Amino acid sequence: MGEKATLLIYCPDQVGIVATVTEFIQKNNGNIVSLDQHIDIEEDYFFMRVEWDLESFSVPRDKLNDYFKTLIGDRFKMNFKIYFSDNKPKMALFVTKLTHCFYDILGRTQSGEWNLEVPLIISNHEYLRSIADKFGIPFYHIPITKENKVEQEKVQLKLLKEYEIDFVVLARYMQIISPQLIEVFPSQIINIHHSFLPAFPGAKPYHSAYERGVKVIGATAHYVTEELDCGPILEQDVTQISHKNSVKDLIRKGQDLEKVVLSRAIYNHLERKSLVFRNKTVIFD
Amino acid sequence: MGEKATLLIYCPDQVGIVATVTEFIQKNNGNIVSLDQHIDIEEDYFFMRVEWDLESFSVPRDKLNDYFKTLIGDRFKMNFKIYFSDNKPKMALFVTKLTHCFYDILGRTQSGEWNLEVPLIISNHEYLRSIADKFGIPFYHIPITKENKVEQEKVQLKLLKEYEIDFVVLARYMQIISPQLIEVFPSQIINIHHSFLPAFPGAKPYHSAYERGVKVIGATAHYVTEELDCGPILEQDVTQISHKNSVKDLIRKGQDLEKVVLSRAIYNHLERKSLVFRNKTVIFD
Amino acid sequence: MGEKATLLIYCPDQVGIVATVTEFIQKNNGNIVSLDQHIDIEEDYFFMRVEWDLESFSVPRDKLNDYFKTLIGDRFKMNFKIYFSDNKPKMALFVTKLTHCFYDILGRTQSGEWNLEVPLIISNHEYLRSIADKFGIPFYHIPITKENKVEQEKVQLKLLKEYEIDFVVLARYMQIISPQLIEVFPSQIINIHHSFLPAFPGAKPYHSAYERGVKVIGATAHYVTEELDCGPILEQDVTQISHKNSVKDLIRKGQDLEKVVLSRAIYNHLERKSLVFRNKTVIFD
Amino acid sequence: MGEKATLLIYCPDQVGIVATVTEFIQKNNGNIVSLDQHIDIEEDYFFMRVEWDLESFSVPRDKLNDYFKTLIGDRFKMNFKIYFSDNKPKMALFVTKLTHCFYDILGRTQSGEWNLEVPLIISNHEYLRSIADKFGIPFYHIPITKENKVEQEKVQLKLLKEYEIDFVVLARYMQIISPQLIEVFPSQIINIHHSFLPAFPGAKPYHSAYERGVKVIGATAHYVTEELDCGPILEQDVTQISHKNSVKDLIRKGQDLEKVVLSRAIYNHLERKSLVFRNKTVIFD
Repeated sequence: MGEKATLLIYCPDQVGIVATVTEFIQKNNGNIVSLDQHIDIEEDYFFMRVEWDLESFSVPRDKLNDYFKTLIGDRFKMNFKIYFSDNKPKMALFVTKLTHCFYDILGRTQSGEWNLEVPLIISNHEYLRSIADKFGIPFYHIPITKENKVEQEKVQLKLLKEYEIDFVVLARYMQIISPQLIEVFPSQIINIHHSFLPAFPGAKPYHSAYERGVKVIGATAHYVTEELDCGPILEQDVTQISHKNSVKDLIRKGQDLEKVVLSRAIYNHLERKSLVFRNKTVIFD
Repeated sequence: MGEKATLLIYCPDQVGIVATVTEFIQKNNGNIVSLDQHIDIEEDYFFMRVEWDLESFSVPRDKLNDYFKTLIGDRFKMNFKIYFSDNKPKMALFVTKLTHCFYDILGRTQSGEWNLEVPLIISNHEYLRSIADKFGIPFYHIPITKENKVEQEKVQLKLLKEYEIDFVVLARYMQIISPQLIEVFPSQIINIHHSFLPAFPGAKPYHSAYERGVKVIGATAHYVTEELDCGPILEQDVTQISHKNSVKDLIRKGQDLEKVVLSRAIYNHLERKSLVFRNKTVIFD
Repeated sequence: MGEKATLLIYCPDQVGIVATVTEFIQKNNGNIVSLDQHIDIEEDYFFMRVEWDLESFSVPRDKLNDYFKTLIGDRFKMNFKIYFSDNKPKMALFVTKLTHCFYDILGRTQSGEWNLEVPLIISNHEYLRSIADKFGIPFYHIPITKENKVEQEKVQLKLLKEYEIDFVVLARYMQIISPQLIEVFPSQIINIHHSFLPAFPGAKPYHSAYERGVKVIGATAHYVTEELDCGPILEQDVTQISHKNSVKDLIRKGQDLEKVVLSRAIYNHLERKSLVFRNKTVIFD
Repeated sequence: MGEKATLLIYCPDQVGIVATVTEFIQKNNGNIVSLDQHIDIEEDYFFMRVEWDLESFSVPRDKLNDYFKTLIGDRFKMNFKIYFSDNKPKMALFVTKLTHCFYDILGRTQSGEWNLEVPLIISNHEYLRSIADKFGIPFYHIPITKENKVEQEKVQLKLLKEYEIDFVVLARYMQIISPQLIEVFPSQIINIHHSFLPAFPGAKPYHSAYERGVKVIGATAHYVTEELDCGPILEQDVTQISHKNSVKDLIRKGQDLEKVVLSRAIYNHLERKSLVFRNKTVIFD
């Protein structure tokens, strides 16, 4: 498998976009291996993901962004980004005490299932250090209190820059992320919430679900925005429960959902299959 | 298949309930064909559904309730009800303009899938009369306005009594039911709401789901209580959607859910498999 | 909503197809409202569905097929078909005795949910005539025996031609369709099978599922081909069951699946969202 | 939480079983915390799981089996087993090269999610030793060839006895287990098969699913019996796929299913919620 480029685009819908973009790639000997596009008719916006083989592609990598912008992007008023498959994204993992998502992500990382690096783990507790050690990943304990929060997030941010982190995954990290951190990583912080949002936002959703007597519980992976549990949804799934299930059962069943839903979201983010537009996602899968 | 009795019980949990109840049935030559029980450990309450063949049962039907109350019910402070399988429940159908649940229920009724009678249909519009005619069921057009609501609900109530209705199904009936009607039919009015409650209560849930950008939509069948969309949930189910789906697609996919979820709820209600306790249901399935 | 054209294409994959096709539509003032394409990398084949508004489209409808073939289709060795949204497909319904899919389809048809006509119903039994009458659709009773099968299928075929039928739906029709009928309607006969194929082909799949002790049951909608239950799959879905469920329960739960799965398949067929290639379907949804 | 006893029973159905068993427990001051029973009407068999608190229970643990057998078991011709919650089952893990189920099980084990011990891992390859080391579990490499199979299974069996193993989990172990091993662990060897059985038994089910063009893929956890992939099914689940998915995608999506389905099966086995009867399971959940 040779190296590939992935182009993500969104712009006001106009006549000729697909033709223009595919012609540009193909005239320069790029072999398109996947193309997906979407028109949001209500918003009159156009979205596209196109992936091509770079083997015979005649535009040099370091000039591609510039060329595309000048020849096509500006003309169509495009928001676009180009990614190269050999550029492994660097993911930071934020955890607290729960292990289910943590083990799941570490297992996938170690087994090579994902095309990424996890250079560091940040936690507000010491609790999971031994697991991080087991997997040989630097673990930073940055305790957070009301008083030191602003200060400690600066420490976090410094680490994220030092390690050249591309995106952050909150694997049941029990702290609210402040706007100053979100700003630096727009649509680059993924959280797993343990309910089918917008039902049961905030703390203790399994307890609330139990109280309400719902017959399904769910999990939601979303990008973090300033408004708590209101960011663009990447992935959701649910499972059936019954009156027989205690809160403990809900947690057990729900944690299986959480880890699978979070991992699907990470996969789509990694593979450049997710695109954020006005608090929603387009998922090209 | 001979005639059967179904006994639904709930009471504070105590030692010996199952033994006592099953002994009573079996000593009187009732052959138990199904038994399901549940203990709500948190509330310390006991729930049970038991069904037995009446063929050789030695307690006469008309004395059964009295005997059971005296010998067992009072001793354990039971709330209980006894149903006989040859006693076909009478269901009233409330509709407005939408046909999907309406056709689904009529089809099942006509085909004999359910053990019930539908003696009348009530609607606040004339719109669906021709379908009711097709199926030969009396159709009452009772238009509702803010001004005449109290008056018209009295007309509805009179009809429900006249037809000896046991329970009511709101098959996408676009009116809020008033407390005076709910009071007469406690845990006997089933509504289908077109979202996975508690997400998106109230009007236009598909539009709200579209706005929020969720990746699953759902439907919820619940008993109607005074607080809108907050009654005990009988059944819920969901389906996956994507960014490609318009509000119209959500409605199309959702209506398939609605009719199946509502029909499952009706089935469980009919078969005496649902029991309401403190705004939740126990579903013995 | 104005009139639209839908173009379905498949051909060996080559450079420039999307660009060429979209350029053709757009240069002739066709406004593309939806475009979906797929590359089967293993088979090196290209698939595309494109839908555009005909309002300002400059190529006359009656010349479109010819123009497209000459200018583009032949060059890329395309298999292609063009459909117009005001051309309502005519569907024949084959039934035997079961009502669940039958009522579901009739309800959807009558309510205008689907853009089609159902000019006739064919059955090997008289059993469902009264329902057909209720919905005002001509009902032909064509009894089939081993002896008269060839003869009777000729009668069926004559009727299908007379009514200018475009496609056939077997709504739990309990007869095997012969090659001579399949030949006339290639990828135009949709069957619902009451299992998740390839598990439990043939007769009595619910009984077999019960025997095997599976924990999920399913339904499969597929195009009919000569080999029984082996045609290209349009849609599948499943539901959880348990040891508590009798064969009767499996049938009850399964029939809810069957009707929804069949209706989704009909919808995709109708909307020209399904395309058959080498015993598989591409579903553009 | 105090110590508990769990009693699993099956026997020909007779009048009075539930009453007799619950009376026995309750008269001896056992507080029943959960009771589930099932009647297989077709086979005329009775199944029951009852769990009670041992705190004030008056029958000594070491005499319980004997008393129950004499007083009740023999009278009703019961097959029964009594388990105590402080008796942690010992599970052996058989693996080959795949890591997804392996990591999942190790993570759950280490986090204390399950009430068990994993004293050893057996593999026919060296491949996963480093992971076993990481988790501090003895790893035995027992290579299998056609020639040495009988011999090597004796080595395996010796180890299983030495470590006092209660049950075995094949976490994508790529070898067929011989009858002599199955015999020693009847209904105590759990396998995960990567399809919804009975569809796609044997090798390479994802390739077969891809070839057939199914729209759902699944995973099945079952007890191992002599006939390959035909043992009693503990748990099944499925996920939707589409024409866009390559075999590689099916594997990726399927492995998420496999690990969750296998873990649910292990949980039910551990909690004594599964009972085997004539090649089917009763799952008391």
